[in-house]
Amino acid sequence: MSFLILQQKINSKKNPTVMGLDPKLEFIPKHIADEVINKFGKTKKAAGEALFLFNKGLIDACCDLIPAIKPQSAYYEMYGLDGIEALYKTVEYAKSKDLYVILDGKRNDIGATAEAYSSAYLGEADIFGEKQKILDADCLTVNAYLGIDGVKPFIDNCVKFDKSIFVLVKTSNKSSGDFQDIIVGGRPFYEKVAGKVMEWGSIDNIGVVIGATYPQQLADLRKMMPNTFFLVPGFGAQGGAANDVKPAFDENGGGALINSSRAIMCAWVKQNDGENFGKYAREEVIRMRDAIMEVI
Amino acid sequence: MSFLILQQKINSKKNPTVMGLDPKLEFIPKHIADEVINKFGKTKKAAGEALFLFNKGLIDACCDLIPAIKPQSAYYEMYGLDGIEALYKTVEYAKSKDLYVILDGKRNDIGATAEAYSSAYLGEADIFGEKQKILDADCLTVNAYLGIDGVKPFIDNCVKFDKSIFVLVKTSNKSSGDFQDIIVGGRPFYEKVAGKVMEWGSIDNIGVVIGATYPQQLADLRKMMPNTFFLVPGFGAQGGAANDVKPAFDENGGGALINSSRAIMCAWVKQNDGENFGKYAREEVIRMRDAIMEVI
Repeated sequence: MSFLILQQKINSKKNPTVMGLDPKLEFIPKHIADEVINKFGKTKKAAGEALFLFNKGLIDACCDLIPAIKPQSAYYEMYGLDGIEALYKTVEYAKSKDLYVILDGKRNDIGATAEAYSSAYLGEADIFGEKQKILDADCLTVNAYLGIDGVKPFIDNCVKFDKSIFVLVKTSNKSSGDFQDIIVGGRPFYEKVAGKVMEWGSIDNIGVVIGATYPQQLADLRKMMPNTFFLVPGFGAQGGAANDVKPAFDENGGGALINSSRAIMCAWVKQNDGENFGKYAREEVIRMRDAIMEVI
Repeated sequence: MSFLILQQKINSKKNPTVMGLDPKLEFIPKHIADEVINKFGKTKKAAGEALFLFNKGLIDACCDLIPAIKPQSAYYEMYGLDGIEALYKTVEYAKSKDLYVILDGKRNDIGATAEAYSSAYLGEADIFGEKQKILDADCLTVNAYLGIDGVKPFIDNCVKFDKSIFVLVKTSNKSSGDFQDIIVGGRPFYEKVAGKVMEWGSIDNIGVVIGATYPQQLADLRKMMPNTFFLVPGFGAQGGAANDVKPAFDENGGGALINSSRAIMCAWVKQNDGENFGKYAREEVIRMRDAIMEVI
């Protein structure tokens, strides 16, 4: 679904945040771990089951409050086929709850290979002449280092299947400046990427990733691209606060989605009460929503 | 395994080429398609079976001639869990034939998430306190746009588990210049990336991807990084020829691995003889090896 639908979901829930689902096993409450280990031993199968049960609990606890989830593919790939199966089940479950699903895979390649990724996550695959959906997310994160012919296959499916992508522009990590901040003609390199994104596609389908940890850059980029959708990671555990993400929003208070992963998933840890992980996640989601809604 | 082992395999087989395994279903001979459709219908399960049977045939036909394979993750992810299972089985089978396995996944992310990818493909995952291998490739391709903290988790596992990575520097596609050729202080951007790669890690573990379609850039980068290992895609179907890749090799005729995918996998198509796809793949591997060995 395009950003128009995402914005509608944000408006109807009055909440511009997305729950990141990056479930390392160490984040999973003991009662879930015990249950799956009892059934399957300390196996990848047990790991996959645990990831899905944890995600399902988080989705059940928060789906009336949040417009979207963002599973991070790495944390599922880390547990092999069983982990990836948990990703598939999580996406399906979230969609059944009418959530917008952003797969954070940062995929990138050229031509036919980018088409294959695009088929997997936004379009459909050709299985012996029959078109079939594979993971079918609403949105995918994409790394654009390979230029337009690495991005166009994703844009094509965005248009064809009413999907969206977020292109990495300025990431939230400490060393994002290694390349992204290199000065080119007086301006940082990431602005070159942002400029290309604006040329490449419609604001309905192609947005940008800009970390909450760089508020000044957020403000500069919002000025440069007043109508582009921003996905803003780095809130919460990575250090970004409500005032830091304020510049991400457009003049109508829309056009941005703020991600928090660990602060929500691990809210139960501070309380040392894993049995009620959903309740604490929900409280954190409300806290985050209220903090952000207050400043925009 | 580090590049020292890769170079040993290249030397013992007198062949600096790698067979890319990017198996779209349309490349797969009819007798294999018929067999799997008979068993499983036109399903993802059938697709996964077909990919593995095709790959196994290609590996059986060529494993005495080639030092390495490079499966491209996108073509497996495109067929869902069954496709990814075929990737796992292909990697396992190739390793049983003593081939060096380069997973072309172009993974990239920050900190803990990059660690998760690194655990999946180069290291091991922690499954409820027990360390387990997941896909366990010898080498992974990595996109470095996020800077050193997106690359260090991969380098750490290279050192710990004697693995290697190739970092994207100058890719083989037409639009690679969109960002990679932007001039920074009089030199192209991709040289900045190359420079960082040389700072970041040992030449035994960290190499670079440079397309066969840019021979001059290959030559310039070889001068800049005389001892770094080069992975060179774009030979064959993408247009690169033996003379184009000559500058990739170091002064001893080593330090580079030339990839060909479609030209090998689809060698049977020109002959319209899918039953003998292995034989034609083998002939193409020999042709490619001889053409390259003649110029270095």
